[in-house]
Amino acid sequence: MLSEFDLIAEYFKRPRPLRATLGIGDDCALLTPGAGMQTAISSDMLVEGRHFFAGADPYQLGHKSLAVNLSDLAAMGARPVAFTLALALPSADRGWLAGFSAGLFALADAHGCELVGGDTTKGPLNICITIFGELAPGEALRRDAARPGDDIWISGTLGDARLALAACLNEPGAGAQLAQAAGGADGAARFAAASARLHAPTPRVALGRLLAQQRIAHAAIDISDGLVGDVGHILKLSGVGAVLDVDALPAGPVLAGCAQDWRRAYTAAGGDDYELCFTAPAEARGAVLAAGAQSGTAVTRVGRIEAEAGLRLVDVHGAPLALKLHGFDHFG
Amino acid sequence: MLSEFDLIAEYFKRPRPLRATLGIGDDCALLTPGAGMQTAISSDMLVEGRHFFAGADPYQLGHKSLAVNLSDLAAMGARPVAFTLALALPSADRGWLAGFSAGLFALADAHGCELVGGDTTKGPLNICITIFGELAPGEALRRDAARPGDDIWISGTLGDARLALAACLNEPGAGAQLAQAAGGADGAARFAAASARLHAPTPRVALGRLLAQQRIAHAAIDISDGLVGDVGHILKLSGVGAVLDVDALPAGPVLAGCAQDWRRAYTAAGGDDYELCFTAPAEARGAVLAAGAQSGTAVTRVGRIEAEAGLRLVDVHGAPLALKLHGFDHFG
Repeated sequence: MLSEFDLIAEYFKRPRPLRATLGIGDDCALLTPGAGMQTAISSDMLVEGRHFFAGADPYQLGHKSLAVNLSDLAAMGARPVAFTLALALPSADRGWLAGFSAGLFALADAHGCELVGGDTTKGPLNICITIFGELAPGEALRRDAARPGDDIWISGTLGDARLALAACLNEPGAGAQLAQAAGGADGAARFAAASARLHAPTPRVALGRLLAQQRIAHAAIDISDGLVGDVGHILKLSGVGAVLDVDALPAGPVLAGCAQDWRRAYTAAGGDDYELCFTAPAEARGAVLAAGAQSGTAVTRVGRIEAEAGLRLVDVHGAPLALKLHGFDHFG
Repeated sequence: MLSEFDLIAEYFKRPRPLRATLGIGDDCALLTPGAGMQTAISSDMLVEGRHFFAGADPYQLGHKSLAVNLSDLAAMGARPVAFTLALALPSADRGWLAGFSAGLFALADAHGCELVGGDTTKGPLNICITIFGELAPGEALRRDAARPGDDIWISGTLGDARLALAACLNEPGAGAQLAQAAGGADGAARFAAASARLHAPTPRVALGRLLAQQRIAHAAIDISDGLVGDVGHILKLSGVGAVLDVDALPAGPVLAGCAQDWRRAYTAAGGDDYELCFTAPAEARGAVLAAGAQSGTAVTRVGRIEAEAGLRLVDVHGAPLALKLHGFDHFG
């Protein structure tokens, strides 16, 4: 029988705190912030059947639970420091715990981000991580900081996660699109590649940090609910509008082989991409490309911030596109 | 139809951040820690059917969700600063949200503790709060800091929450004990008084802060799983033992009217008390009493830390008591 305290000791407590002044095991963890530094904080809750399928691979789930939080730090330009994990579990299953903690710590260690506390309880599977990052005053990439004339940039590629989800859910046409994307190649391999984007996203921490630290970008957001909805938050909070070239959006390698309407829909409003959308002045184009190269992250220029409110979608020729798209809303 | 973003704007976003550099609405919140101060962090997750009954009063639930987190700050001696709220809701029910947010903010405002971010999602009702406090290096009341010779103290009273739970669950004998506690008085009023301890606990923030800031106490923990189990964490981490006078434990006003075996069991291992158990050197007795008076919190001396490992329960005459007690374990 695995008790609550054994469970924590066995799967989540590391030998000693890395940088935390006090880690797991007291009423609170203690962090000592760097002199003059600000603390960036974000929380994400993942619910079974909503954010992941029942029976999801626990290693990937451990990775994804932390990845979506790291992605929020990336979108702010903060350096990851620590996180707490609150976990509701239907039962204390050793196999699940071993997989989940291994996936979680592999990503945490890659970013030097330390588990400092949390909570463990019985209940429907629910994973809530709160993450802490550090940055200097003035560095933060805020949603309200876009300015008319800024370029709009996207990291990496979009839409493969949404394509994998469509295939998992057996949505009409998804299978045919995957087959078309595969061409003569191995369809299963294509599906696996797209699925990896859905189940094990890569947070763009190094890119976000460079964009903030070198004061390259103005505004940024991470794309979790679909680009059009997420970029809308920047526009609203910055009091600006934008033109977005939908055909310039970088489709994932699998989606790139699909029909144009699927490419447009899933790059513009897919969801679960965890790429960065950021704005930067035109003079900074060289610096953006250098930051992309330095962090090993593709960066693509896809539009422009304008003073006139509203988001104007255009095609490769600059002609208006009337796509019916919307971001994801949990209660919509 | 209440969208995810309307829900946050309507029930959880305040006009402007109080002290946070950046509050709700971006990828991360930004806090600027006081110069040289440490950050205390704690997370608690409350699951329907586990930590509260289905259909629980939302105002009390908002209060309790934050109270249990404030109690962790109190046990560390930290000053509350801010918190995040991650909420899984089966549906966006306006009545529930209005009650929950009112209870939450009433307690938050009383402690100057600001909601800075979080997450809202659809799912089985689950409330996860992560709280942030501030304290100076060396102030923290750590579980590993008890020393042989220290007195053991308890704030407030114990056991009424457990008595109310027993009555709610219709546990054998609970009704008769409540009737006995009422004597000739109003039984419903007694039940309501005990229930208030269960559903709306009072975090001992002011007392904890004084004990830490004035360097009065050595170790502290908040009593959530039952005193015997929780004091055991102090003993284990401090490498010490203790004698605990079970008959000196301050019973809640309702439990005080119950039979001796109920009083002993529910003060020693009730659960859901959210009182502080702390240790302080004998020379500090006057200072402890003064801190209690200054914070308006009763403090009772109930035992002594000893070098010999183990927890020895004794009665009012100092004779060993063999009570079968254990702390709460979610997976036990």
